[in-house]
Amino acid sequence: MTPIDSLRIDDNRLWQSLMALAQIGATPKGGVCRIALTDEDKAGRDQVVQWFRDAGLQVRVDEVGNVFGRRPGTDPQARAVATGSHIDTQPTGGKFDGNYGVLAGLEVVRTLNSHGIQTVAPLEVAFWMNEEGTRFTPVMMGSGAFAGIFGADHIRSQQDGAGLTVGEELARIGYLGDVACGDVPGGAFAAYFEAHIEQGPVLEAYDKPIGIVSGALGQQWYDVTVTGMDAHAGPTPMNLRHDAMLAAARMVDAVNRIALDQAPHGRGTVGHLQVLPNSRNVIPGQVKFSVDFRNLSQTGLDAMDAAMRTEFARLAGQCQCQVEITQVVRFAPCIFHPGCVASVRGAADSLGYAHMEVVSGAGHDAVYVHSVAPTAMIFVPCKDGISHNEIEDAKSEHLAAGCNVLLHAMLAHAGVA
Amino acid sequence: MTPIDSLRIDDNRLWQSLMALAQIGATPKGGVCRIALTDEDKAGRDQVVQWFRDAGLQVRVDEVGNVFGRRPGTDPQARAVATGSHIDTQPTGGKFDGNYGVLAGLEVVRTLNSHGIQTVAPLEVAFWMNEEGTRFTPVMMGSGAFAGIFGADHIRSQQDGAGLTVGEELARIGYLGDVACGDVPGGAFAAYFEAHIEQGPVLEAYDKPIGIVSGALGQQWYDVTVTGMDAHAGPTPMNLRHDAMLAAARMVDAVNRIALDQAPHGRGTVGHLQVLPNSRNVIPGQVKFSVDFRNLSQTGLDAMDAAMRTEFARLAGQCQCQVEITQVVRFAPCIFHPGCVASVRGAADSLGYAHMEVVSGAGHDAVYVHSVAPTAMIFVPCKDGISHNEIEDAKSEHLAAGCNVLLHAMLAHAGVA
Repeated sequence: MTPIDSLRIDDNRLWQSLMALAQIGATPKGGVCRIALTDEDKAGRDQVVQWFRDAGLQVRVDEVGNVFGRRPGTDPQARAVATGSHIDTQPTGGKFDGNYGVLAGLEVVRTLNSHGIQTVAPLEVAFWMNEEGTRFTPVMMGSGAFAGIFGADHIRSQQDGAGLTVGEELARIGYLGDVACGDVPGGAFAAYFEAHIEQGPVLEAYDKPIGIVSGALGQQWYDVTVTGMDAHAGPTPMNLRHDAMLAAARMVDAVNRIALDQAPHGRGTVGHLQVLPNSRNVIPGQVKFSVDFRNLSQTGLDAMDAAMRTEFARLAGQCQCQVEITQVVRFAPCIFHPGCVASVRGAADSLGYAHMEVVSGAGHDAVYVHSVAPTAMIFVPCKDGISHNEIEDAKSEHLAAGCNVLLHAMLAHAGVA
Repeated sequence: MTPIDSLRIDDNRLWQSLMALAQIGATPKGGVCRIALTDEDKAGRDQVVQWFRDAGLQVRVDEVGNVFGRRPGTDPQARAVATGSHIDTQPTGGKFDGNYGVLAGLEVVRTLNSHGIQTVAPLEVAFWMNEEGTRFTPVMMGSGAFAGIFGADHIRSQQDGAGLTVGEELARIGYLGDVACGDVPGGAFAAYFEAHIEQGPVLEAYDKPIGIVSGALGQQWYDVTVTGMDAHAGPTPMNLRHDAMLAAARMVDAVNRIALDQAPHGRGTVGHLQVLPNSRNVIPGQVKFSVDFRNLSQTGLDAMDAAMRTEFARLAGQCQCQVEITQVVRFAPCIFHPGCVASVRGAADSLGYAHMEVVSGAGHDAVYVHSVAPTAMIFVPCKDGISHNEIEDAKSEHLAAGCNVLLHAMLAHAGVA
């Protein structure tokens, strides 16, 4: 074992940083409310930038408020190896979502500092503007602009409910930078790693501290309207009904079957459903519901789409109803960079952590960064899989394990001088 | 064919009476709003009572506002053969629901008058107080009190939303009578027949002008709560879900199966369903819905209840959810009097009308009267099966056919002098 192989981050320092940042915008129920570009977000940003500077990082801010802290390497030509996440939260958010990825990156730098270790390539720690999308839509705004998915002007012109724009609010809180979106000194990131709590139940269920994230599920969302005919429940025999509720119920079951047919990555959810007229003794004449399909391949999503259309038409006919399907959202699936994923797995193996391959069911900044740099993610368990909630919780030992994996994966790409 | 066999009611006179009564409380969309014990109901009652008196009927009003018009027979000892229905309407009701049964009874009397025909037993035409239950609950209040199901004091103390009581409102509109509930000169009705629009689609679908109503379905209503666990649709794999929507959807399908297993009279409906939190990308943690079971026998209803409890428990377990079932309403099934049903069938046969046996899926005054007198009902088709709606419609020829059946069924029991 070389001295580098035995290098570990400081569990306690990481935990204390997380708890300190969680004080800014702390809620009475133990959560955090630090919505993008509010006074609380400014205070959180100022704190993290101060920590960046204290750790010797060179700070730059881009034209949409993404913040980067750079630790130079020994090779002035080498492209940076980066990490990061976000520090904005949901209105009733937790202490770990996003914050963990940013402070894990800071802890990597602090660990290298305290051991006097230089890397060949520069390292960068980023926090991306407005990942949550709770005040300004769309979600993952800063990383999307960085990756060129959205134009900077377009993003700065987005308004909140009160009519304030992203650009105005960035200027007001002092985070409207002058670096062009996507510009990185020395060229695009050589690699990008993002550590994040899982926000799901898999790692906890399988008792693994580390999730090797191989990709993020694509999403296709639909609005479905089933139309039958209202009729009195009493006088209308079963064979003369046009029961939109019955047809919709069978479609909900079909959504489940279609997802199971695409195991292990297919997911199908009906989260929203509305019945008309919704009266106890009236056979419903109309039911509207949402379908949320996710899968790791576009082929898989296409198969789910086709199966749904066939099944829904059949089930509507069975119940003497009509069905109308409108696609409302589409995110392409993302397969992370095999070399970066291998580095994460290699680090977890070397460190002796139990791990498993998982996919991200939700979007993350890494999904956008993936389009401009080799990318991978590291998941750690969160209690009961709960996130976007003030009771969000995670264990210090898991957070430390994920941070050690991040450290070694980054070193594998940056090289020790 | 005797002269009596060839006796027919006056189609046009019946239709004109229906249209005239529909002017009182007429709505702009062609319906009627004559809610129980309002000024409009008083005006409707006054009109019908005037027509009763003009036809020579002796009018009496009981202590809950039921009104009876009596045509004496030749035998002072004979018990009356009665008919009737109600003239109160839904807020957006139609011209025929209830009104048809009362004015068909009046037309029977007018027909006998114009042909100078005397009956052995007296005839009575009744209209029952507050059948619809839209202002004062419960429904079928007057016939229920007449049958002794409810006490007269209890009924008179019922309040509307403004705190006015049935007793106060009866007095105000001049219909608080002094006849005790259930008292009929000469003793209980020898028979009671009620003509009514079907309020369902069966007669129209089978193209039959006359429905021989063999009984009324019993009803058992339930509130069901399925509890799983909210979770993000993306990060939660199919096998780790507690999806209350999926469980509820399978239960809706089971309600349908359970009803079909009880063909031809079993009916099962989920009319009301509510999803929590009802957000597109959140697996629902709770779904609440109603179940409305109907059947012609209590054995059948009991079997549906038992099948539901077994199936719902199984389906909840399948989806890792809990289920809670609360029964909220129960009406016993009613089988009409075989002799009265036979008289209706015999009249339809003699008159040469196509007919079929049907059951009433909804409640009617006849269901309560049935408990104190031999009873049957006659249904006629209504357009598209639609009722409790301003567009409720029926054909004059069908209304006349039903009235001719009523005439001859009543004569069969009353005897021609």
